[in-house]
Amino acid sequence: MKKIALTIMEQLTPKYIQVSRIEFEGPEIAIYVRNPKALAEHPEVAKEIAKKLKKRIVIRTDPSVRRSEKETIEVIKNLVPPEAGIKEIKFDHVLGEVIIKAEKVGLVYGKGQSIYNKVLAETGWRMNVVRIPPVDPKDLSTLNKIIDYMLSQSSYRLEFLRSSGERIHRGVIFENRYVRITALGGFMEVGRSAILIETSESKILLDVGINPSGIGYNLYPRLDIDQLNLEELDAVVVTHAHLDHIGLVPYLFKYGYRGPVYATKPTRDLMVLLLLDLLDIMQRSGQKPPYTQQEVKKMILHTIPLDYGEVTDIAPDMKLTFYNAGHILGSAIAHIHIGEGLHNIVYTGDFKFGRTRLLDKAHTEFPRVETLIMESTYGDRDQPRRDEAELELISVISKTIARRGKVLIPVMAVGRAQEILLVLVDALRKKLLPPETKIYIDGSIKEVTAIHLTYPELLSAQVRARILRGENPFDHENIVRVEGRQMREDIAKSDEPGVILATAGMLTGGPSVEYLRLLAPDPRNVLVFVSYQAKGTLGRRILDGEREITMVDEEGKPQLVRIQMEVKSIDGFSGHSDRRQLLAFLANMKPKPKNIILNHGEPQSIHALAETIRRRARHLGLPEDIRVYTPTILDTLHIAGVA
Amino acid sequence: MKKIALTIMEQLTPKYIQVSRIEFEGPEIAIYVRNPKALAEHPEVAKEIAKKLKKRIVIRTDPSVRRSEKETIEVIKNLVPPEAGIKEIKFDHVLGEVIIKAEKVGLVYGKGQSIYNKVLAETGWRMNVVRIPPVDPKDLSTLNKIIDYMLSQSSYRLEFLRSSGERIHRGVIFENRYVRITALGGFMEVGRSAILIETSESKILLDVGINPSGIGYNLYPRLDIDQLNLEELDAVVVTHAHLDHIGLVPYLFKYGYRGPVYATKPTRDLMVLLLLDLLDIMQRSGQKPPYTQQEVKKMILHTIPLDYGEVTDIAPDMKLTFYNAGHILGSAIAHIHIGEGLHNIVYTGDFKFGRTRLLDKAHTEFPRVETLIMESTYGDRDQPRRDEAELELISVISKTIARRGKVLIPVMAVGRAQEILLVLVDALRKKLLPPETKIYIDGSIKEVTAIHLTYPELLSAQVRARILRGENPFDHENIVRVEGRQMREDIAKSDEPGVILATAGMLTGGPSVEYLRLLAPDPRNVLVFVSYQAKGTLGRRILDGEREITMVDEEGKPQLVRIQMEVKSIDGFSGHSDRRQLLAFLANMKPKPKNIILNHGEPQSIHALAETIRRRARHLGLPEDIRVYTPTILDTLHIAGVA
Repeated sequence: MKKIALTIMEQLTPKYIQVSRIEFEGPEIAIYVRNPKALAEHPEVAKEIAKKLKKRIVIRTDPSVRRSEKETIEVIKNLVPPEAGIKEIKFDHVLGEVIIKAEKVGLVYGKGQSIYNKVLAETGWRMNVVRIPPVDPKDLSTLNKIIDYMLSQSSYRLEFLRSSGERIHRGVIFENRYVRITALGGFMEVGRSAILIETSESKILLDVGINPSGIGYNLYPRLDIDQLNLEELDAVVVTHAHLDHIGLVPYLFKYGYRGPVYATKPTRDLMVLLLLDLLDIMQRSGQKPPYTQQEVKKMILHTIPLDYGEVTDIAPDMKLTFYNAGHILGSAIAHIHIGEGLHNIVYTGDFKFGRTRLLDKAHTEFPRVETLIMESTYGDRDQPRRDEAELELISVISKTIARRGKVLIPVMAVGRAQEILLVLVDALRKKLLPPETKIYIDGSIKEVTAIHLTYPELLSAQVRARILRGENPFDHENIVRVEGRQMREDIAKSDEPGVILATAGMLTGGPSVEYLRLLAPDPRNVLVFVSYQAKGTLGRRILDGEREITMVDEEGKPQLVRIQMEVKSIDGFSGHSDRRQLLAFLANMKPKPKNIILNHGEPQSIHALAETIRRRARHLGLPEDIRVYTPTILDTLHIAGVA
Repeated sequence: MKKIALTIMEQLTPKYIQVSRIEFEGPEIAIYVRNPKALAEHPEVAKEIAKKLKKRIVIRTDPSVRRSEKETIEVIKNLVPPEAGIKEIKFDHVLGEVIIKAEKVGLVYGKGQSIYNKVLAETGWRMNVVRIPPVDPKDLSTLNKIIDYMLSQSSYRLEFLRSSGERIHRGVIFENRYVRITALGGFMEVGRSAILIETSESKILLDVGINPSGIGYNLYPRLDIDQLNLEELDAVVVTHAHLDHIGLVPYLFKYGYRGPVYATKPTRDLMVLLLLDLLDIMQRSGQKPPYTQQEVKKMILHTIPLDYGEVTDIAPDMKLTFYNAGHILGSAIAHIHIGEGLHNIVYTGDFKFGRTRLLDKAHTEFPRVETLIMESTYGDRDQPRRDEAELELISVISKTIARRGKVLIPVMAVGRAQEILLVLVDALRKKLLPPETKIYIDGSIKEVTAIHLTYPELLSAQVRARILRGENPFDHENIVRVEGRQMREDIAKSDEPGVILATAGMLTGGPSVEYLRLLAPDPRNVLVFVSYQAKGTLGRRILDGEREITMVDEEGKPQLVRIQMEVKSIDGFSGHSDRRQLLAFLANMKPKPKNIILNHGEPQSIHALAETIRRRARHLGLPEDIRVYTPTILDTLHIAGVA
């Protein structure tokens, strides 16, 4: 620490900046200065230090030089043009940040950060601007809760950042004698994803999900082995906000974990929303949740958001970088650099190597890769083309509406919901659907969609452009937001046709299951699956042909439901790469890995993909002696280090 | 514990036996009785209890009923015939045992244990008879040291047995959620054998060897991973006394292990001898040994000897049974039963599925087997027939003697030394060698051979019969024991031809290396390898063609030695199964395993064997979907339990 600090002092020779102290704050090094004016005039100094140290630097001002809230608000209002649409200004006295909620983030920061630098120079406060999209304020409730809660716990957070910073930057005690990967969940199956990466120096978890089927002994990943000790865990890395990747993160905090959770910002927001929603659904359906809101709150305070491409120290011998995975908003491929060039792991998480309406396709270039851990959901099959899938969906909806039936599309709140919304809104605009077609959306979809509007920079060029123009590409006058059981029943009973988007996407609970019960008896209706249905879920059972289901009615009484509505599965909307895309990803990947570990797929998918990769290794540009591993749960692979 | 005790009391309804207390003693349950007479008259009672409880039972007498040493010696002398050749009688007052060293063990115990029972009834002392073969007493020095040391530390040992007994019989806390096997050493290589078997309840090590090459970072097995915590370790199981399987056992005691080491009795004796010898060689050659005699002593006190076929609890969810492995004296195949029928592992250790002069071939029938861990030293090649190998050896010796050269045969002190001695003695008797042929034996061979004479019941029928007749089948008038450096030089310089058997067997140190230096320049001499030469050893380097070796002379100065003596390798004497025998073992094994894990072989041997097994699965009677695993160091396989 001292050594680093000294180097910094040396770099900061322009004495006028007046460094008062230097602290580790999580993965960053915070430099507290007394003369922010000078620094604002020379913003290149911070960049040079960061480059020199190969560390992330954050410049903070000494509290003594910060001006009053009133004066600061005055300065901001004078500098920021009114079109920026500032909604709220709050102050974090611990971190010296002024949190500004505004409609147009860019206008608040100013061209080339000019306003940011001026505010810093004149007031000593760093601006932190959050985008507030033009939606119903209640759709921003979780986002606001996160911001307010973090602000209220700012001291705790600073304390956590300092202690985790010390831990991250501790000296490497052992030379790197091994790198081991242990399958804790989501191997030879889809669900409860969790991977332990272990070196002689540190241990991290990649994802900690639950099984979406919600039943049986294999609900949680295998956190019960001795090899995993929560107190020794250095970091939890979360690739995207679906429950099979995040469902058990708060559980770690219940059992003593107090380290950081790394995720992109949207993943953090969506994660909080989904987990609170999960707790709510479990409580309402009488299940005992594995943790409470308390642990979700702890998780919020311990989450360190990272942008794509930002190289971050997460342990003395590990650096993490996220890249776009193309699966859902904020989804990331995690690149982990271990030791000084000892080994590099790329974990795809769930990824889509193909463009969708919502997102760009997954990133394929990495600084170095020896081992690739790749999802294999569709390792054994191709999917129809996206435009064909859209046509089919529109056609099914049109036919159903013509016979005055209702279309129930179970969707995950995050990802497929927005993708299908874009398709439907587009179809309405292009008049491919009857103009009176109502689209009902239920569950947390609205709120999740609002979070999408908060991060336009992470969406596809087309969607981003429309949002930045002030439009809401997910909205249409025919869209009706459903709230409460009574409204659901009214919709189901009414004679008017319509399309219903409801969560959960695999019929594992939530409004989609209620609609199913209400709509199942009428053969004019149709149930349309547009995403992967995991083993053990009600969705999968129906997809596999089950037509008599025991369900629970309003009063909690079991009831046998005969599914007489039509059942359709339209492939091609998936956020997962299909077989062709998995192989194309390998063919495009730079550099090529030496080891490929396949996970997140049912055994036949994984075995088929392994076989295909081995057979086509040369064709894909992979080394001919490529090692393809297909581990099962609790297997450990020793992939690098000394023998 | 109480429940077991009560059952015992119930069984012991013949009140006259007068149970005074019940204790766990290691894997056994010790019943202390006040009326040994009654028990001696009803020896079936103990057997019935053992059967009922499925536990091993030991009956001890209450100290209050034991007669004086003098009276007891009197009783023994009256009962035991003089032909038994009693040499010494010692008393262990802690355990209530009278230790008798005698030439004929059977005569001391009496027919059907009749004298044992009489002595117990009349004196309250349990006889423990040790065979003393008719050899030079100094060859029994280690054996006597072990007996004397154990006697002197009897209280410590009882304390250890009680505490380890409590630990072994602790209740099963977790249901068996997994069985995992981790490769710590001796996978994709020969040397430093060590395997971790881990359940949610317990952890054991199978073998803890060192790398015979004695160089480089891969000298020790990988005990440095978090998964292995010496304080949590329940047991160490040692399959046979070669350094690549036992070399690091005392090291565990240096770093805090205080649990039991399970081995057959000869393995214990040979292990102590070899380890003390190793420390001696290391000290003399200026190397820093990884532990001292103190830890070897601790190991002695913590070793619990087991007979072949004896089913023994070693952890709350594990039972161990040893079977003959046919590799060296006392070598064992370990059968581990996990949970109540959850899983069964057979670990072959080093094994020979073929008869040798010394030993019967390896055992093939087991109560149950799901997973087989099999050595693969010769997985890629067959060995010549044994009789052809013997003829070739005799012919090489004859030719060399005819040209007045010397034959240097480096041998491991345990196993090959005795095997070759039997061949040479037989050849001398049958006059296949010139009658004047001297056989020099150097290193610890004499003492090791004496230990063989102590356990005739474990040797082949032919050798056993001769020993029980009072003969020493390893001895001949032409055999000369070498002691000290001067004598070695004299032999090397003398013009008389001869055969030299010297340790170490892979030229990794010891007298064989000294002879090599002395004999190398004379082309009339011959160096004959009769056993496996592991990678990295001097033996292997010479075998691979190296002929200029830097060695250290008497004064410790480096010296370039040109090997001009002939170099020969005679295959067929190996204590390992060759390819044919490995496959024959699988074909004969009952029942058949579902998983085969290959270890103890260089990569090409292991891969070739895996391929052969998969291809011939049906032919070998194995399931067609047999899973053959070829793990590398630090890989972990999850072989049983829930997903």
